[in-house]
This record gives sequence, C-alpha cells and structure tokens, in this order.
Amino acid sequence: MQNERLSVMNFLNEATSRYPDATSFASGRPVEFHFRTDRWGDAIREFQTYVANRNGQAFLDAGRDLAQYGKTNGVVNELIAQQLHVDEGIECCASQIVVTSGCQEAIALCISTLCSKPGDVILARNPTYIGVTGAADFAGIEIVPVDVHPTEDWKSVLAHTIERLRRLGKRPRALYLTPEFDNPTGTVLDMVERQSILEVCSQHRIAILEDNPYGMFRFDGERMPAMVTLDKHGCVIYLATYSKTLCPALRVGAAVVPTTLFDDAESATRLRDELSERKSFLTLNTSQVTQAIVGGTLLAERGSLLSLIQPSLDHYRINRDVLLSALAREFSSDFDRILWNRPQGGFFLSLSLPFEFGKREVVECAEHHGVLALPMSFLALDDSHKCELRLAFSNLAPEQVDQGIQRLGVFVRKRLS
Amino acid sequence: MQNERLSVMNFLNEATSRYPDATSFASGRPVEFHFRTDRWGDAIREFQTYVANRNGQAFLDAGRDLAQYGKTNGVVNELIAQQLHVDEGIECCASQIVVTSGCQEAIALCISTLCSKPGDVILARNPTYIGVTGAADFAGIEIVPVDVHPTEDWKSVLAHTIERLRRLGKRPRALYLTPEFDNPTGTVLDMVERQSILEVCSQHRIAILEDNPYGMFRFDGERMPAMVTLDKHGCVIYLATYSKTLCPALRVGAAVVPTTLFDDAESATRLRDELSERKSFLTLNTSQVTQAIVGGTLLAERGSLLSLIQPSLDHYRINRDVLLSALAREFSSDFDRILWNRPQGGFFLSLSLPFEFGKREVVECAEHHGVLALPMSFLALDDSHKCELRLAFSNLAPEQVDQGIQRLGVFVRKRLS
Repeated sequence: MQNERLSVMNFLNEATSRYPDATSFASGRPVEFHFRTDRWGDAIREFQTYVANRNGQAFLDAGRDLAQYGKTNGVVNELIAQQLHVDEGIECCASQIVVTSGCQEAIALCISTLCSKPGDVILARNPTYIGVTGAADFAGIEIVPVDVHPTEDWKSVLAHTIERLRRLGKRPRALYLTPEFDNPTGTVLDMVERQSILEVCSQHRIAILEDNPYGMFRFDGERMPAMVTLDKHGCVIYLATYSKTLCPALRVGAAVVPTTLFDDAESATRLRDELSERKSFLTLNTSQVTQAIVGGTLLAERGSLLSLIQPSLDHYRINRDVLLSALAREFSSDFDRILWNRPQGGFFLSLSLPFEFGKREVVECAEHHGVLALPMSFLALDDSHKCELRLAFSNLAPEQVDQGIQRLGVFVRKRLS
Repeated sequence: MQNERLSVMNFLNEATSRYPDATSFASGRPVEFHFRTDRWGDAIREFQTYVANRNGQAFLDAGRDLAQYGKTNGVVNELIAQQLHVDEGIECCASQIVVTSGCQEAIALCISTLCSKPGDVILARNPTYIGVTGAADFAGIEIVPVDVHPTEDWKSVLAHTIERLRRLGKRPRALYLTPEFDNPTGTVLDMVERQSILEVCSQHRIAILEDNPYGMFRFDGERMPAMVTLDKHGCVIYLATYSKTLCPALRVGAAVVPTTLFDDAESATRLRDELSERKSFLTLNTSQVTQAIVGGTLLAERGSLLSLIQPSLDHYRINRDVLLSALAREFSSDFDRILWNRPQGGFFLSLSLPFEFGKREVVECAEHHGVLALPMSFLALDDSHKCELRLAFSNLAPEQVDQGIQRLGVFVRKRLS
C-alpha cells in the first residue's frame, strides 16, 4: 500500500508542475495575508525579553539560552496553553504539552508511541489526511479505515470495527480524527458523534488523536466544543499547529497529553515522557528560534490569534461562498447526481460526481480544461471514494475559484454528454 | 537495553540539576560566543533578498514563499554545498543534499531507511554518541558495537564482526562513525583506518554514516580529509550540522547522499528519495525560517564559517590546553594507571582511571567534590568501558576546567589511598 499511496501523491505533484497555469484546487496551503517575515525579528526580541524578565536574567543571557540546545518538550508551553484556553476553550497546563517540529512530528510520535506491540493498529476516518497514512506506513503500523455512511452511526461502526479487529488478534490503540472541517472532506462531527466516539474509545482504551488545524477558521454555524473539552476519562491527545494561524515555515506544533490517560495519571505521565524521549532521538528539540517567533507573536497579540487571522478567515469565507455559488451555477441542473457539502469553515469541500475521477481525469482536466483537483481516492485507505474530489479553496483568489469551477463544469458536462 | 540507556541519561540530567554548583564536564554544548540572536532578522532578510534576486521575484513575494510550506529537501542546499566545499573540501551538488531538522533527524532517517528488513543491523564504534543509540533503539534496530583495541586493526575487526553477524543471519547495513574528534572519546581516525574502513564497507555494501560536527574545530596537527572525499564507490553518507558552527537552536543539519551508492547511480537516487519521503511524514520540511538564518549567515560570511567560529575555536583550544596541564598536574604521578588522550580538536577528552566510575562515583564526585563527569559506560553499547570518563571541555571557562580537574584529583586520590 505504501508505495501506491506515495506514487499517487508524486503523480499529483508532477501534474501540478507540468500544468502551472491550471487553476489548482489541489493544494490546501493557507493564504499568505498575515505572513510577515519582517516581524519575525521583533517577535524573537519580544519573547527574549519575556524570558529574561521571567527568569530574572539579562536580555543577552536569555538570548544565549535561546540559541542553545533546549528542553525537549519546549519553551513556549505556557503561552501555548494560554492561547488554547482563550481561543479554543481548552484547559491544559504547560506540563501537558510537548512542542513538536510541526504537527506532523506530533502525529508520527503519537502513532509510534501508542502502537508499540505487534498487532497494534491505528483507526482513521476514511478518507483521511495523507500525513497520518504516511506516518503509519513508514512506522510499519497498519491503519484501519472507519467508514461511517449516512445511514450508520459512529457508535455501532466503531464497535463493529473493534470487534472485527479483535477476532483478527489486532488491537486498535488510537483513532485519528479532525472533528472540525476535516481534511479532506470539510465536514464537522456533531455533538452526538463526538460523545459517541468518546464513549466507545474510553470503553476500549483507544486514544483519540484530535487534530485541529482548521478549528479557528469557522465561517458560520454554531461553534462546537473541541473533543478534548468533552473528555472525562483522558482519551484525547489534542494536536495543535501554528501552520495555519501563523505560518507553515515555523514548523511549530504540539501534542497535549491528558492529565489522566484512561483515568490513570501515571499512565498519562508515562505517555508524555515517552513522547518526549522518542522526540529527543528524532529531532532533539523543536527549534527555539521558531518557538520564539510563536511565543513573541502570542505575547504581542495578548494570547489570542483571533484578530491576526481575521483577514484570512474573511478570505476563506468569501472563497467558500464563491465556490458554493459557482457549484450551484454549474451543477444545479444535475443536483441528483452531483453532490457537495457546505463547509462551515476550513479549507476543503467534497464534491461527488456520477463517474469515477482518477488519474486519467486529473490529466484530462489539467491538459484540456486548465483545472486541477485531487481525487478523493488518493486519500482513501481502501478502494473507495472513487467518484469524489477534494476541492481546496484556501489559496486561490475568489475569481480563480469561480473560473476553476466553470472549467470543471465544462469537463463534467462533456463527460456526461 | 533501551530503558537502561535512557535511564542512565535521565540519572545524569537529574544529577546535573541536583548539583547546579558542581563544575560540569558532562555537557558537550558549544560555547555561546558567536550566538547572536540580534543578527537572525538580518540573516533572514539577506537570504530573502538572495532568493528574490535568484528567482526574479519581488522581495515580498520571496518572503511569502519563505513563510509557506517548502520543499522537503530544503531551500539552502546550494549554499550548504558551497560551504562544505570551501570549509571541508567536500565536492557535492545541491541535489545530493537533504536538509534535516538538526543532524539528529538525519541520523534517524538514515538508520530507518537503510535498515528496512528484519535482520538489518547498524554498526557503531564503541562507545558511541547517544543520539545514534537512541534512534536505533526507538526504531527497533539492533546496534552492534565495534571495539578496535590498540593491538587490533579496523580491517580485521570489521571483517570479523561482519562474518560473525552473517552466521547469525544478520546483515550490517550501515556503520556510524565520527572520524574527527569523536563524541565521546575525542579521537581521530588516521588515514590507514579511514582507507581500511572504506575498503571493507564498500566490499560488503555497508553505508558509512560520517557524522562530522567537530571537524571545523581542529586545534593542531595535520588536517585529515573527510572520509567522503576518499570514497570512490559511494559508501559514505555525510552528515552535517550547523549546531556547533552557528547555534543549536537553528536545528538545521543535512544528509549528503553520494551520487552513486556502491557504484550505482540509480540506487543513490532511490536512497535520497526514500530519505526525503520518510522525512515528509516525520517533519514535512525543515523550518524555512531557520534555513534562511543559515543561508543568510553563509551569504554574509561569503560561504565560509571559518572566521565566524575563530573565537570559539580559540576558546576550545585554550580549554584543551588548560585541561591537559591540569590532568598532568593532578595525575602525572600515577601516569601508569591514569591515562588520557590528547585531543587535537573537538569538545571531548577520554580519561581512564584504575577503578570503575559509575553512578555511585558520579554522585560522590558531585556531592562531596563539586565536579560532574560522564561515565563512558553510559555511552557504551555493551558492558565495557567501565573505568573511563568523558570530559567535555567546550562550555566551561578555563578557570573552571582547571578547578574541576583539581576537584576530580582530590576524589581520585582519596579513592586510591
């Protein structure tokens, strides 16, 4: 499976560079409005001053410490805890946090640490983020798809999957989820789903890896509580990232380990220490330069990133609206065969066509219609989701979104005629 | 073995924090002379200007790209290749380089990639750097000690080890080495040893991981060519780091993959691509912020770090001299029982005592004599090296080096009396 998955992503990267003029819905990059490289130096100084004051150190001494090897678990943990509290309503303390070299490292660390024995497997909603699939593949850990169809519920599907695995001698150790504006589908788990998942996972001692890169980017609808805030037994390891709220180049993420793991405080400490030890032999510690930029920015913004991300949030909302209008315009006459969701936030929308959309269709769209999109099957953990596309609307101008869907419309109508 | 190794390092960390006033020869941190956090902003601007000019971009556009997700293999590869050429005499091109989140990530990536099958093992000189031991342990890969005693030669010891492993159904896939001023022993491999190792490894298709963090810090003696420059068949993966020449907080290292791997260009490309793919699911890409600081500094220094590191080099040389004088003063009357090497560079010296130096001795030295040192057995891959110590002299003032050895002298004489 590993090589196959990588090869489809390579195929997409090649298509992207072979057709540079195609409007691309393939890349889920954040927009660059608030990327201010000229503020990085100020942010570092701000954090250095904060550290100096906190430790009763001279400014230069704080700088020397900052430039040295640092604590494996990080140096901005307090500020991260504060921001998670203010912006996400998450209560945690600095000692629960392992700062990582991007959220990808947190995913890789959690998967390898939780699945340490033969037969340990990871569950993931199908389709899922390629980063978790790749990390599991390279760690030699099986990733088991969880498909919850509209007529089913999470509780029974999860219970069924766990029972099926048990019979095969396999033990699910973690469930990877993006409850808010999932990559790739753009969907949100409702309260009943969140509660059900927590119940089943706590009962079966399955850790939930709650990845939340898009939670701050809600356009409308009621705000949902992060699963970690609903967690009574210590099932949830919350994964945070500053790649979307600040910028990807920082490569700063975090894993927030619960205070009790399945109601056991000692297990939780052991898990945190094992994540930390594993990290120390993977990347030693997260760059204190980029941690200082995160820390300094959080200080300058008084602990909340809400106002900093406002222009980007507006941009994503406008793009979502343009996308929905364009889809309605192009495909409403086929509304029984062509379906899409209405994302309440995030970067992605899922489009379902009445025919398979795979490699051949990617090339045809790019070459003859000037538009690129990602087949959902590239992100599927099995042979499913062949008629779906992931449309990323985050890093395009609104006019491009509109024009891209127009082009896709031409392709679809041609194929259907 | 894993938990045991980690526990001794935890023990040492605890001892270090329990006895903060003890003179510590335990930490091999670089000295902070050239740590200039106030220059980081300038370095980023310098690199951003360079990229803008190179790509014919506006300065702000180059900044936006810099703040985004980046190429997995890095963006400062050309500048690194240039510096390796000027400062280390290593010929390589940008495409051979995978920039990593510190050299530790390069080690972890190489080990996991090269040892992909059951029975694949890593060889390492005994004792060895804890980072390679830990990375192998966490990847579940056996690390086999290579001990070359003064009466033996590398060629026969390596051949014997390989043959012994072959009989056990094991296959050595890589040999980890620090040929210049080894951590922990401070020793240097001579030309005959380098040639012998290259010959045996090329014959048996064993990759050499040549780690070279200290090569730029030679105090005296003739400069030795890096093993990669002697490599005719493509055995050597060269590992570079900017933690000692610039500063550890950058977390920028690199793996330089040969153009042919055991005389095969396709294998070399495949290896580089697999390192890169594995990295993409571990840390995605190395922070472009810290890459920009490395790049901007290399531009400002016109491609060579020699003059930037001069004050540190002088400091290390002085400390080495003070250390040698102090050792001679304290222990010369026992010269037949207490032995040490004379490091020609680097951060470490190896001291051999006529009694075992373990946990109990660490505590006794710290508590009663105000001096901390690292038992070499903590870094050994087997039950050996029990009477040796690693003395790190890099991050102390010369007076501390002198006083620390005086204190160690009191302890040793007390023990011997």
